[in-house]
Amino acid sequence: MKVFRWSNNPIIVPDDIRPSREDFEVIGVFNAGAARIGDEVILLLRVAEMPVSNDPDIVQAAVYDEAQDKILLKGFSKEDSGNDFSDPRLIISGGETYLTSISHLRVARSKDGIKFCFDDGISFGSASEEEAFGIEDPRISFIDGVYYISYVAVSDLGVVTSLASTKDFRTFERHGIIFCPDNKDAAIFPERIVGLFYALHRPSSSLFGKNEMWISESSDLRCWGNHRHLMGVRSGLWDELKIGVGAVPVKTEWGWLEVYHGADRNNRYCLGAVLLDLNRPWKVIARSKEPILEPEADYERSGFFGDVVFSCGLLYEQEKLKIYYGASDTSICYAELSLEEVVSSLLNR
Amino acid sequence: MKVFRWSNNPIIVPDDIRPSREDFEVIGVFNAGAARIGDEVILLLRVAEMPVSNDPDIVQAAVYDEAQDKILLKGFSKEDSGNDFSDPRLIISGGETYLTSISHLRVARSKDGIKFCFDDGISFGSASEEEAFGIEDPRISFIDGVYYISYVAVSDLGVVTSLASTKDFRTFERHGIIFCPDNKDAAIFPERIVGLFYALHRPSSSLFGKNEMWISESSDLRCWGNHRHLMGVRSGLWDELKIGVGAVPVKTEWGWLEVYHGADRNNRYCLGAVLLDLNRPWKVIARSKEPILEPEADYERSGFFGDVVFSCGLLYEQEKLKIYYGASDTSICYAELSLEEVVSSLLNR
Repeated sequence: MKVFRWSNNPIIVPDDIRPSREDFEVIGVFNAGAARIGDEVILLLRVAEMPVSNDPDIVQAAVYDEAQDKILLKGFSKEDSGNDFSDPRLIISGGETYLTSISHLRVARSKDGIKFCFDDGISFGSASEEEAFGIEDPRISFIDGVYYISYVAVSDLGVVTSLASTKDFRTFERHGIIFCPDNKDAAIFPERIVGLFYALHRPSSSLFGKNEMWISESSDLRCWGNHRHLMGVRSGLWDELKIGVGAVPVKTEWGWLEVYHGADRNNRYCLGAVLLDLNRPWKVIARSKEPILEPEADYERSGFFGDVVFSCGLLYEQEKLKIYYGASDTSICYAELSLEEVVSSLLNR
Repeated sequence: MKVFRWSNNPIIVPDDIRPSREDFEVIGVFNAGAARIGDEVILLLRVAEMPVSNDPDIVQAAVYDEAQDKILLKGFSKEDSGNDFSDPRLIISGGETYLTSISHLRVARSKDGIKFCFDDGISFGSASEEEAFGIEDPRISFIDGVYYISYVAVSDLGVVTSLASTKDFRTFERHGIIFCPDNKDAAIFPERIVGLFYALHRPSSSLFGKNEMWISESSDLRCWGNHRHLMGVRSGLWDELKIGVGAVPVKTEWGWLEVYHGADRNNRYCLGAVLLDLNRPWKVIARSKEPILEPEADYERSGFFGDVVFSCGLLYEQEKLKIYYGASDTSICYAELSLEEVVSSLLNR
């Protein structure tokens, strides 16, 4: 697979983004949803911020409080052996789990798809109990003139997928949680298929340890049912541990093309592709035996959480998949792949 | 709380039920859904069966195979140190989890609500990949002339809630999975509330270790959305570890009365009650500080999984809650409580 990585990758780094508060620092900008409006490319960035601690012994967690409608800080001592900081993303204390960073969504706009300007402040941030630990990983589906955003909301109630919509990326309407705990990596197909909407998503089963891709249907985008298992992990391959959608599926003459992510036992995240039947999207036609994009460049191999390429958004234009992807949970990169090459690799042509 | 337990409890025991196959034994009949049709009480029994092993060294798991449309047996040696049988309900082998029993639903009919006749064979059994490990814990909601059954389906894909319907408890129609892994203990309110259907259910969050009650809405019973956290566990009380619905909510003048189950840190399962606002059922009015029914009798204290009372079905008749409940995951018992006493205990009157 020929991958054209932009020569000046990453195209967006944490230093490009102004923190939402003076006492926060931006530690990551990654996993952006993508859309085109006219001559502009819109990225809906996931911006991860960490409270700046004045005391080197204290790690602070930022938690949104619905009653006060603001983010409060909670300190945890490094000296306290009851506090577990072994996963850089988590603080585990007294049986409770917190995140070391809190994410919000921020709008970025570009004419050429590479150089972006950033809206000031939080474009879309926590607003309810279910979003107390932040908002992550948006996917944008353009349906009937409206941009629908399926995003991950995290709180101590669990990890859920919620839905919002916008026409202009300036004001947003919320439609509530669409997939219950634990569920993430959801993307809605951009059009009705034989009269119904479909979404791919990733529920988790703790009892059976599964993190695999499911497909569901809806008549109104807000209520979802007929949930079905779509595809599982593959022992010994690049997607042996867990899988989930990347971007919104792309309609092609060969089927719906979905660029998805998979992790292996070392938590190395790669991108692959799967082709789904055009009229029966719960039928898998073909699936990448090898990744189509894997962590190779320095910026993909090291960072906040290394060895990760992860996409929430791409554009299909000029026969190319223009992929925006998070590298190492730190920055945003850009790569182009030929759609025909990807399809050929799937169909072994 | 005065609890009237039927003097000849349990009213249904495993020996009453003919196995569905000659090489199976019934090890439990419990957690039944309940409905009234005219002068008959219908119980939809959860019947748990275990394959009879001819080799004392081998434990067999029964797994439904969709391709062959039949239940196959899989043997696990007790001598193999890689096989874990420490939880009587599970076999853990080579990273995979199986159940030691497989459940189906069986119809029981009674004129007096105490002495039941049983339909022969499986009334409603596994029929898809998502039901490979069996069907459990039905709740029956009578809506617009149709009995809707929300039930738990288990497979290595996870634990889900599915929906079926029937008009006569002889033929059943399937409506697919309504709540994704892991989710169980779902009950649909028996009528529309301000134009929408509502269901209570229990998603699980593995990351945050939560097993709590949520409420969702629907316009057609098949697709569900606007999922909201309803209520959580309470530290130090009888429902400190996990909670989930028992039976379908009962409409009263004081609000929707839901008899729910809670477990404490010792996995002791009790029943309590919660009163929800009539028009805004996502609002909790009051909740039992003490259980309304707890394991006290011998048959509730010992059995396949002891110290458990667990209800999936009750009838509200003659001002009484007629509760059918599973005891120790082994048998079905009957008890009556005064609705007014339960409400008084909630409202501290």
